[in-house]
Parts: sequence; C-alpha cells; structure tokens
Amino acid sequence: MKARARNIALVVAYDGTNYHGFQRQTPPVVAVQNVLECALGKVCGEDVELAAAGRTDAGVHAYGQVVNFFTDGRISVERLPRAVNGLLPPDIVVTQAWEAERDFSARHSATGKAYVYRLEECTVPNPFTRSYAWQIFQPLDHDAMRGALAMLVGTHDYSSFRAAGGAPMSPVRTLDEIRLEEEGAGRLSCYLHGNGFLYHMVRNIMSAAVSVGLGRISVERFAEIFAVRDRRLVPPTAPACGLYLLSVDYVAHDRNDVRK
Amino acid sequence: MKARARNIALVVAYDGTNYHGFQRQTPPVVAVQNVLECALGKVCGEDVELAAAGRTDAGVHAYGQVVNFFTDGRISVERLPRAVNGLLPPDIVVTQAWEAERDFSARHSATGKAYVYRLEECTVPNPFTRSYAWQIFQPLDHDAMRGALAMLVGTHDYSSFRAAGGAPMSPVRTLDEIRLEEEGAGRLSCYLHGNGFLYHMVRNIMSAAVSVGLGRISVERFAEIFAVRDRRLVPPTAPACGLYLLSVDYVAHDRNDVRK
Repeated sequence: MKARARNIALVVAYDGTNYHGFQRQTPPVVAVQNVLECALGKVCGEDVELAAAGRTDAGVHAYGQVVNFFTDGRISVERLPRAVNGLLPPDIVVTQAWEAERDFSARHSATGKAYVYRLEECTVPNPFTRSYAWQIFQPLDHDAMRGALAMLVGTHDYSSFRAAGGAPMSPVRTLDEIRLEEEGAGRLSCYLHGNGFLYHMVRNIMSAAVSVGLGRISVERFAEIFAVRDRRLVPPTAPACGLYLLSVDYVAHDRNDVRK
Repeated sequence: MKARARNIALVVAYDGTNYHGFQRQTPPVVAVQNVLECALGKVCGEDVELAAAGRTDAGVHAYGQVVNFFTDGRISVERLPRAVNGLLPPDIVVTQAWEAERDFSARHSATGKAYVYRLEECTVPNPFTRSYAWQIFQPLDHDAMRGALAMLVGTHDYSSFRAAGGAPMSPVRTLDEIRLEEEGAGRLSCYLHGNGFLYHMVRNIMSAAVSVGLGRISVERFAEIFAVRDRRLVPPTAPACGLYLLSVDYVAHDRNDVRK
C-alpha cells in the first residue's frame, strides 16, 4: 500500500464526561477517538486512524490532547479545524492543526506533558462542577499538601503512585513542577509537569495529597509511602472528573506552522 | 382538608442543562420541579407541591432558586438538605432549608432578584462552557456594552426587552444594578439586580448589549430601541445557557433560621 502523502497533527480539547476515555472502543461503547476519526474521515474522504499523545481514561478531560494521522485528503490545515468541528459534537473541539514532518508521532515524539487536577472545597455539593472537579466536603490544609507534593519534584521511582497491575515499564520519571494554586471560591488546582506519567499516577498522587490535606495521613507518612514504592499503601485513586490533560511538549522543529 | 402544619422554604441550586425548565411538566418531559417534588415527597412521606420564586426556562441555571411547600412531614430542617440531596440527581442540590412563617411564599414574598449572565469571548469553541455561557467568537467592546447597560438602571418601562407575546402585566420595573465584570480568560459576567424581571428580559437585554459590543448597533441605537418600547427591534433572545438565577430577596423576618 502506498504511504499517504500528509502527516497532520491536531490539538484537541474535550469534555470527557460522556466518553469512555480517549482510546477507540468497540461500539456501542464510544470513546473520543471513535468520534474524532469518524469526523476526520468525512473531511478527508477516507478512513483515518489516529495516534494520540495520551490515552485519557473515562471521564478525564483535555485542553490540549495532541493527535496525528496520515492522509491523502486535500483539505488545508487552515480550513480543517472549522470543517471538523462542524461535524463534531460540542464536547469535542479541534483547536489547532498543522502539517507535521513525516516522522512526527503525537505519541512517540512527546518530550513532556502537563496535567491539571481540579479540587473544590464545598459545604454542599456544587451541581456545576460535579463532572469537572473532585468535590471535598471538609477543609483541606493546603500548606500540608504543598509540603507533601514538593517531595515528588525531581527524578524518582514513582511505583507507589502507579496503577495496580500497570504495564511493566520503568517506574522512573522526572517531574519538574508540581504547583497547588488557590483559584478562589474554594477551587484548588494542582498543576503537574513532567517528562512522562505512569498510568493513574496523577490521580494516585492527588488521592494521597488529599489524604494529607484532610489530616488522615501526615506529611511524614506521605514521605514513607513514596519511599516504600508500594502502590497498596496509597488511598483509592482520585476521581477521573478532576483530571485534565493540559498540554503536550514536542521539540520545536516537529511543530511547523503551529497556530497560536 | 386540614391545612398542613409546616411551611418549609429551600434554596436550590441546579444545572438546568438537562431539564425542561423549572416549572412542572407532564412526563416524559422532565422539569426541575418534577424531580424536586418527587424527592421531597419521599422525604416527607406525602405528596408535595412546590411554589418557586422564579420559573427558569429550559437550559437556564440557578445558584439560588427559592421554593416553599407545606407539609406534615416530621423531618427537621437541619437534616432535610442532606436527606433530599441523597435522592436527587447530582445536577440539583438543596443548599439551605428553613421553617418559614405560614404566610411566606417563595413567589409572592420576593422583593427582588439577582441574575448573572455569563459570556465568553473565544477564538475556538470551548467544550467546557458550551452549556454554561454564551460563547462569542469576536472581540466585544466592553466599554460600549457598559455604556448601553448603564442606561437601563433606574425605574423604566422595559417593554423593548420583554418576550414577544408576554403576559399583559405592567412592563415597569426597577433595576438598581447592572454590572459587567471581566473575570479572566475571556469570561465576562453581567450581574443584574432589580425588584422584578419581565419574561425573557435579561436574555433580551444581553442580546442587545452583545450587539452593541460587536459594533452591530451603536450605543445611541440601543438608547432608541430602549425608548421606543417595541420588542421587535431587539435582536433574537440570547441563549438560555448563559443565564443563572443568583438569589432572591425577602424581607428579613420571612427568613427565620437561615443557614449560611
């Protein structure tokens, strides 16, 4: 089969609430990838198969998921976002498109990723953030949480925060930033940036940090849990709805013609 | 029939996206009132009929809708919110409950209301606010909008902003505050407070104000439209999804035991 002529990369934002994660599923289960490939196929006039930077889980959101696909379709990258968005449901939006080098892979060329996890301290449930933040009904000790989270910055073995039964890849990653910000009205956002993340790593970090914030475990206990590299010591994984894939990093020359 | 013993008032927050407005509908059409009456009926052990301060339309939201109902049910107002919330879907939340005087009516005792209408200036659609703000894809002239909105403060005949075919009640109302606030990241909120609002009045005011913001009509033309008291001159009603009933005012003695 002749190789397709163009390698097109997209930035995609989506509200993951109504999808069974990003990765393609067998209908009637619907993932973001199913819907996106279907719309892109119509715009390009041929079946399209995507590769994505990150496989977000069911209920997880994205501001800046990156995907790429090969096509012989003729639509310009300037017109593509609007054309595709016209065929997509309103909870999935293509925000950028560019012609990538042939060897660009949204997944394999990624050099880093940023996530944000949103928390909300409430006295009663907030109907507007029920799918967009982890609502916590007791006050959190933000300084204790910051103390715990600060330990995770650097190059470490993050086995304690990997998913139970995760793939047997190296548990060593580098996190260069973890920042907990108060954003008013009880909203708290934790920004994380690193060269890669293990499966469920952000959500497991957040569940342990919230346990510290609630005073259920001490900062010292958090340090012990981190050091012992045993997933079974961490509280249950934090809810998917608080997690957002914020952006994906690539070395500059992979992103010709990026629109801002 | 013997009058029921207690008059209970509630503050209710809801995400109106999935409901056909507040006011009770005939199933299978579901309004917020249907769901709320059903849950309250279970908690009180008898059928419950609500009166509400405002009949929000389909897709309109509320942070502080106020309702009241008469019951012989014995549940304390301290326990009621949690008990009802346990039976409600997560997009409807009772945030306060109190024992009201017998002559308190959420609807007829209201002396004022506050609404907020949310706008978002976007370059591409935002999947996260699609049901929570009116997304505008061109820059708005905020100062021109403020100039137009400022004319509406005071006691006026608001016929130009009432719904076409609205009920033949007096079109004179008093608005004591209209404030357009920039809230970062392209988000704009217009806060309105007055002694009452005509049907579709806030949404018609916003459609005209956005026309001014886009330069489609001048501030002077806005003034003419307001003065001429003819609904047909105002652009189409703004989307329901941007509108939130923020709070309802009552004279203080009607609200014994309000929990904060």
